[in-house]
Amino acid sequence: MEIAPELQDELWEIAGQLADAAAQQSLPYFRSSGLSADNKSAGAYDPVTEADRKAEEAMRSILADRRPQDGILGEEWGLKPGESGLTWVLDPIDGTRAFLSGAPTWGTLIAVDAGDGPVLGVIDQPFIGERFVGGFGRAEVQHGVTTSRLKTRACARLGDATLFTTYPEVGTDAERSGFEAVRDNARLTRYSLDCYAFALLALGSADLVIEAGLQTYDIQGPQAVVEAAGGIVTSWSGGPAHQGGQIVAAGDPRVHEAALEVLSRFV
Amino acid sequence: MEIAPELQDELWEIAGQLADAAAQQSLPYFRSSGLSADNKSAGAYDPVTEADRKAEEAMRSILADRRPQDGILGEEWGLKPGESGLTWVLDPIDGTRAFLSGAPTWGTLIAVDAGDGPVLGVIDQPFIGERFVGGFGRAEVQHGVTTSRLKTRACARLGDATLFTTYPEVGTDAERSGFEAVRDNARLTRYSLDCYAFALLALGSADLVIEAGLQTYDIQGPQAVVEAAGGIVTSWSGGPAHQGGQIVAAGDPRVHEAALEVLSRFV
Repeated sequence: MEIAPELQDELWEIAGQLADAAAQQSLPYFRSSGLSADNKSAGAYDPVTEADRKAEEAMRSILADRRPQDGILGEEWGLKPGESGLTWVLDPIDGTRAFLSGAPTWGTLIAVDAGDGPVLGVIDQPFIGERFVGGFGRAEVQHGVTTSRLKTRACARLGDATLFTTYPEVGTDAERSGFEAVRDNARLTRYSLDCYAFALLALGSADLVIEAGLQTYDIQGPQAVVEAAGGIVTSWSGGPAHQGGQIVAAGDPRVHEAALEVLSRFV
Repeated sequence: MEIAPELQDELWEIAGQLADAAAQQSLPYFRSSGLSADNKSAGAYDPVTEADRKAEEAMRSILADRRPQDGILGEEWGLKPGESGLTWVLDPIDGTRAFLSGAPTWGTLIAVDAGDGPVLGVIDQPFIGERFVGGFGRAEVQHGVTTSRLKTRACARLGDATLFTTYPEVGTDAERSGFEAVRDNARLTRYSLDCYAFALLALGSADLVIEAGLQTYDIQGPQAVVEAAGGIVTSWSGGPAHQGGQIVAAGDPRVHEAALEVLSRFV
């Protein structure tokens, strides 16, 4: 789907407006003593905060006003079909465990899917005041009043790679084994960063993010940012990433290829 | 050792000056493309940056001017004995792996040891702009222009506890088993936060930090902050923490006791 330059600018601007509105809802809850976590599914610990719901509500309300013709897929309220061919993909608080434990590595994820994946994405971390935006051939980070270009860095080999994943257990036993086979060859591994890991990849501070069990709304914002910064995001078998599942994101196609070679045996 | 109120104020003020000076040295290197990591010990990956050395140098130079009578124990240049009975304990960049990978969860650690542990401590995260200070019966966090009181939260049982450690492998096999025995009973576990984990404990956003293999300069700053905020910091067998080793820090003595009961079997 072709998107005209004026529409590109409008979508970029609206994405920023959504991130502002989400931050206004989420920040007052962050580190507040009244923070409570419901259980979405009985048994598992899957915290959802009121902040999460309010932030998505705020974003949906702006879209109802400014882009009523577009679809919306959100973590909290699911899919609202549209007629324009564009779908906004929203995760109001990615990293609810980080949010609950006070760590400023959660983020609001926003993407525009044009039918076969994101053409624009945002990772917003409002406590630190960092907003990572990528799409339409442009990638930047806004930090306070400063805006800088995002560019992934060169990394030829796994042995030089800084690697991130959120949970050391990753997913299924096979998925854990796949991750560990890459980790054992990587230079440095860090955990528990959620969407912030993709932001660091786009910044050129790290080389690989490996995840499993992601949802569409977990990956589309980060995918657009990383791709616009020069990186590559696929499934573990090298297929499309935009519907989630097993994800490998890299800043350099060479280290992506090296990771795929290992991970594809565990698909 | 008794410390007069005027000296308490002076030490508190100097600690802030040290943190400012360290930030001035470290921040220009954070996320810079010229960031390089030396290997302290051949074989192991133990990154030390020029930032680390310069930040400690800047702090030592201030102390030479303002408190020449005090001792200094720093990560980079070891011990300079003093005559006052007070020793400044400095870790210019705690969490060098976070620093190298662009994650803003490293910190500058500063403490004043009065002979049997820290009486004042600082955890400074200058990229976010957060400074956690505790000592002499006072604990606060400065964030930008706002200063708030630090207070640990109540947590009676492991089953309610949010738990942090830096490395999933923790330390030796026995130490890993000890940690995992606690983790398996905790509500929520997060990794890779280094000193920032202790700051979140002092903030009342989390309940337990368990580490092994810490150095004196890794623990004294965090220990003072957590204790001043109402928490408790000991070794895994309940002994003193200020010389490092196996550390368990808790916001509530009840969950500290519950963790000790498990960990003491793995000492």
